[in-house]
Amino acid sequence: MVDILHKVGIKSSSLDDAYKALTTTAGLSGWWTSDTRGDGQAGGTLQFRFGAGGFDMQVLEAQPARRVLWQVVDGPQEWIGTKVSFDLKQEGDWTIILFKHQGWKEPVEFMHHCSTKWAVFLLSLKSLLETGKGRPHPNEIKLDSWE
Amino acid sequence: MVDILHKVGIKSSSLDDAYKALTTTAGLSGWWTSDTRGDGQAGGTLQFRFGAGGFDMQVLEAQPARRVLWQVVDGPQEWIGTKVSFDLKQEGDWTIILFKHQGWKEPVEFMHHCSTKWAVFLLSLKSLLETGKGRPHPNEIKLDSWE
Repeated sequence: MVDILHKVGIKSSSLDDAYKALTTTAGLSGWWTSDTRGDGQAGGTLQFRFGAGGFDMQVLEAQPARRVLWQVVDGPQEWIGTKVSFDLKQEGDWTIILFKHQGWKEPVEFMHHCSTKWAVFLLSLKSLLETGKGRPHPNEIKLDSWE
Repeated sequence: MVDILHKVGIKSSSLDDAYKALTTTAGLSGWWTSDTRGDGQAGGTLQFRFGAGGFDMQVLEAQPARRVLWQVVDGPQEWIGTKVSFDLKQEGDWTIILFKHQGWKEPVEFMHHCSTKWAVFLLSLKSLLETGKGRPHPNEIKLDSWE
């Protein structure tokens, strides 16, 4: 098992703003993909679409100002069953998000791609919360010929 | 042992340009840190400085158009002995860089930080090679209160 790890700090004193960006379709569509549907509360399912493909996530945990945990229930084969978590904490003027995408079976090239792509979208989340404007799909930085 | 993985594609037909950006101080100072000194050829040592701190890398491999491998010989304790590699390949109009920072002992918070920070700098490398202008330190995106 190998994991993708990231950390992004947002100049904000509101853990609640970060939490909303991770648990509402309005928030999620502002930084990950503009085509986001479903229910981001615990027990709900979220559908994220990127052109033809995408991911369905079951929301396992949604603890305000603390933690969001999803499990992938549909999407690329390598993603199914993996878990995506966002742990939130406040440090002075910064809201800190510790991100994990856990449970990859092998460190395949697609995992390299997804690691960098998660960073691109977490920077979009940072921008959304700091400036009011993110770069969700289809407007994000394109990394390679796979997209 | 846990690894940081990334993949970045550059719209370029020149593996040589990417190789130069990874093995010359002129290239490295254009995307990672403007304070880069030393010798990027196999057997050489490179000094990367970020304000007070930084990293010294021994160049273990430098194969034109194929691969660059460094080992950290000085820097933060978590980095010492770890290895950083860049594998290059051409796919149509894209130069692909597969990046690994291998040999972390534990998935500490600093590793989360470094993973996202490597993505920030690899996007700077992409920008340098596509537009002629990167965002090396001290002008890169700041991620948290650690910098």
